[in-house]
Amino acid sequence: MRFGVLGTGTVGRTIAGKLTELGHEVQVGSREADEDKVTFAEAASFGEVVVNATAGTASLEALNAAGAANLYGKVLIEVANPLDFSKGMPPTLSVCNDTSLAEQIQEAFAEAKVVKALNTVNAAVMVTPEVVPGSHTIFVAGNDDGAKAQVSELLQSFGWPAEDVMDLGDIAAARAMEMYLPLWLRLFGATGTPQVNIKVLAAE
Amino acid sequence: MRFGVLGTGTVGRTIAGKLTELGHEVQVGSREADEDKVTFAEAASFGEVVVNATAGTASLEALNAAGAANLYGKVLIEVANPLDFSKGMPPTLSVCNDTSLAEQIQEAFAEAKVVKALNTVNAAVMVTPEVVPGSHTIFVAGNDDGAKAQVSELLQSFGWPAEDVMDLGDIAAARAMEMYLPLWLRLFGATGTPQVNIKVLAAE
Repeated sequence: MRFGVLGTGTVGRTIAGKLTELGHEVQVGSREADEDKVTFAEAASFGEVVVNATAGTASLEALNAAGAANLYGKVLIEVANPLDFSKGMPPTLSVCNDTSLAEQIQEAFAEAKVVKALNTVNAAVMVTPEVVPGSHTIFVAGNDDGAKAQVSELLQSFGWPAEDVMDLGDIAAARAMEMYLPLWLRLFGATGTPQVNIKVLAAE
Repeated sequence: MRFGVLGTGTVGRTIAGKLTELGHEVQVGSREADEDKVTFAEAASFGEVVVNATAGTASLEALNAAGAANLYGKVLIEVANPLDFSKGMPPTLSVCNDTSLAEQIQEAFAEAKVVKALNTVNAAVMVTPEVVPGSHTIFVAGNDDGAKAQVSELLQSFGWPAEDVMDLGDIAAARAMEMYLPLWLRLFGATGTPQVNIKVLAAE
């Protein structure tokens, strides 16, 4: 399958690398093209599926550069976290509580099938879940069930067992996934490793 | 030990019941006293340790009624969630992102030793962690290490194994614990039970 990965940071490079390793065709998009990467618009146009791995505070601008026509009808895997480092550490969220970045993206690109996923773990865990011992949970959220099923299959190809992929509901559930980030930062601090995740356990 | 529990909702009643069962002396405080309960001020005065189990949006008012003198030098276990139901469902948080309810309480009552705890699980799980199968995590946060150690021991008496009590750091970590609530609400929705919790897993 053809993927357009927007963003050339650690997350974008890691996901693009894994997709290539799995035999997919990948183009990585950036604000400016060079020998290794194309523009946001070229990457989005190339991909049958598009991955938003840009910095959360720059995502809407990057997706506008990608262009609504290049996202039309496509699954858009939304991995970004709207972290605002401008006020010092720890970062705050540039949007939260009564909306989320993923909801803003879904609203701005109504014909894309936005699926929030993978933002709750670091890049290494995203594509190598077994670096965290035992069974642990990865979330998906979005309005299109078919798109979520497709993303769930992709996560399984990354190494996430089907039973560890938890559907949290519609795209508004991205609020919960993004507001988890402050806890993730504290778990990193308390455990001393960014290779940390949670397992959801419930009474029968 | 003597406990003052502020709040007569499910959480307050459940914690007061467990404390009584464990042999502690407990007074439950409410805005108005009746045959079963005393005032906030009387309960806080009675307790060597005080538990804030009021609704988050009413907590500062309740603690003001309890009185700074009655909280002076005491461990204040801060269980509340600042859930705002006034804008419909799902609730938003009345405070989040760059501060938290627990931080506001610590600031308003500088001589109390505020420890955020237990707000990430429902009342039944708080005092009967074994209703959720397997090992799962409960957090504490606060500025006073001795107070956190005391709360950790109390949690162990509730049934939480010592290795499942995770110290997230100073009182600002309460931000992370309170911003977890939207995810908790979605986990409740996805699993169909409020008896749900998370286990933190990290690479060695």
